[in-house]
Amino acid sequence: MSLDNRAQSPAGKPHERLADYLSDDMDAVNRLIRERMASRHAPRIPEVTAHLVEAGGKRLRPMLTLAAARLCGYDGPHHIHLAATVEFIHTATLLHDDVVDESERRRGRPTANLLWDNKSSVLVGDYLFARSFQLMVEPGSLRVLDILADASATIAEGEVLQLTAAQDLRTDEAVYLQVVRGKTAALFAAAAESGAVVAKAPDDQIAALRTYGDALGISFQIVDDLLDYGGASETIGKNVGDDFREGKLTLPVIKAVARASAEERAFWERVIEKRQQREGDLEEALRLLHRHGALEETRQEALAWAARAKAAVSELPPHDLRDMLSDLSDFVVERIS
Amino acid sequence: MSLDNRAQSPAGKPHERLADYLSDDMDAVNRLIRERMASRHAPRIPEVTAHLVEAGGKRLRPMLTLAAARLCGYDGPHHIHLAATVEFIHTATLLHDDVVDESERRRGRPTANLLWDNKSSVLVGDYLFARSFQLMVEPGSLRVLDILADASATIAEGEVLQLTAAQDLRTDEAVYLQVVRGKTAALFAAAAESGAVVAKAPDDQIAALRTYGDALGISFQIVDDLLDYGGASETIGKNVGDDFREGKLTLPVIKAVARASAEERAFWERVIEKRQQREGDLEEALRLLHRHGALEETRQEALAWAARAKAAVSELPPHDLRDMLSDLSDFVVERIS
Repeated sequence: MSLDNRAQSPAGKPHERLADYLSDDMDAVNRLIRERMASRHAPRIPEVTAHLVEAGGKRLRPMLTLAAARLCGYDGPHHIHLAATVEFIHTATLLHDDVVDESERRRGRPTANLLWDNKSSVLVGDYLFARSFQLMVEPGSLRVLDILADASATIAEGEVLQLTAAQDLRTDEAVYLQVVRGKTAALFAAAAESGAVVAKAPDDQIAALRTYGDALGISFQIVDDLLDYGGASETIGKNVGDDFREGKLTLPVIKAVARASAEERAFWERVIEKRQQREGDLEEALRLLHRHGALEETRQEALAWAARAKAAVSELPPHDLRDMLSDLSDFVVERIS
Repeated sequence: MSLDNRAQSPAGKPHERLADYLSDDMDAVNRLIRERMASRHAPRIPEVTAHLVEAGGKRLRPMLTLAAARLCGYDGPHHIHLAATVEFIHTATLLHDDVVDESERRRGRPTANLLWDNKSSVLVGDYLFARSFQLMVEPGSLRVLDILADASATIAEGEVLQLTAAQDLRTDEAVYLQVVRGKTAALFAAAAESGAVVAKAPDDQIAALRTYGDALGISFQIVDDLLDYGGASETIGKNVGDDFREGKLTLPVIKAVARASAEERAFWERVIEKRQQREGDLEEALRLLHRHGALEETRQEALAWAARAKAAVSELPPHDLRDMLSDLSDFVVERIS
């Protein structure tokens, strides 16, 4: 099955080619996820988890683990556990994020906190987090445990930092990067690194895969934040301005604030810090972002991080999966290139 | 210092004698907790954590780990990490519990969710949980990791189970026990067991300490639930009825429901499942609890679990700490004896 797919879709999107190539492994990961999200005692747990897990999503993070392990020549069983661990950690953070952000939609469906309640989302998130640690203990690698425990702490730290930093105009690019590492890059990096570690790859390959995951994750998040202002082109698209309306400070605004006149600064204080927004403010914000070249500069940074990801995988030995990961770093910035 | 205290307070309460005996170890645990609850990037984290950690509490759980390790002859450094781990897990669950229960007071002070917000409590709880896993990886014992990861999953499962079971009259004693193991006993058991494991104690001693922690925790929680109805005596004290007013099904009510007439069952359905309570309902509930001997039977169960805890430690070799743990199992049921 997966061999056929591999042959038939050489020109598909890189994450689809990865999914085809790794389809047997991903099937095993999905089986393990379904098995471990069950609970003998509390039926609420699989209800909530199934709602989120079965909504799909690209499963990029577990695929990174599987791809890293396979391209480092691993043929044991433990990458399956680690990939499921990574997906459980990701799912747990989504559940808690939706409570924190009071979100009502995720992946086109109502969120768990809306369908059940905040209590269920908090506690089922805790359950998945605990299950992820049970899963990661099974392969018996202390080095992998170290990597994933560190990633979990960085994720939580980044989320707390965002609580205070996202509405504070003093937030600079270093703090933004720290938040982005927590929100996105830490788990991408740990996912790729742990796959290489379980494969007992040489240290330089492990480091290259970690760098790849980190840079890919950062690029991914910057693109997201840029597209929320419609990208770097002057044409304003649809679905623009969610971050702005939430008063969330992202890289484009940080750059514009750094170059703001006194009058412009007063504008940003009103709309971001005080969240007193009125008709026409989003248009004014976009005008300022363009005037200071903030969107174009943000775009350049996303491209630079994608290039760093690409350079990191180029250090690995030749392999179909290496090429797919390389293409994936292009794909992440495709919408802004 | 600790030696003087040891000599001076032979007749103190058992947890105070444990604290005196283990004071050097507990100082090291407290230093490690303060060090690890810091965050270079997110100052909100130590603010929230300090509020809870410095409010005190008896620190029973980390003391169980220290006592178990010491009485099994351990003289290495790792029991300190494990005791801090256990306290971090406990603190993380308290933060999330207060969000779930919408509590406003904890240990006589306003809760973190009241002082800051639910978001901070959820995310700082996640941070502490991740930090606890970092801490428990450091001693490098996969067996300990297994024990603590399992305990974390049991805790979360018990909390989710309680969400649905606590207002459902079909909840039986087996489900109640499962909830209590999650809420209280799982961490007591893991705390004691992991201390023995890090000391490389023989398997029968490890098992005895696990059984002790489990039985002590169950007894502790049943006493709490019993005292919420004023204990087994006919005199009604103050501060009675919190669980009743919250419509929370605990062991006394489960026993009364099991023997209820049709009319009594309708009463329980109204006050617990529908939470339609009026003047005089608590008095009626107490009358039914006494009529069916539910409070006396609950009291007997608490005593039986305490006796099981006592019997378990009696299998350990003679040691001052063993005697203190034995006394602790008496102390837990002192208020209902």
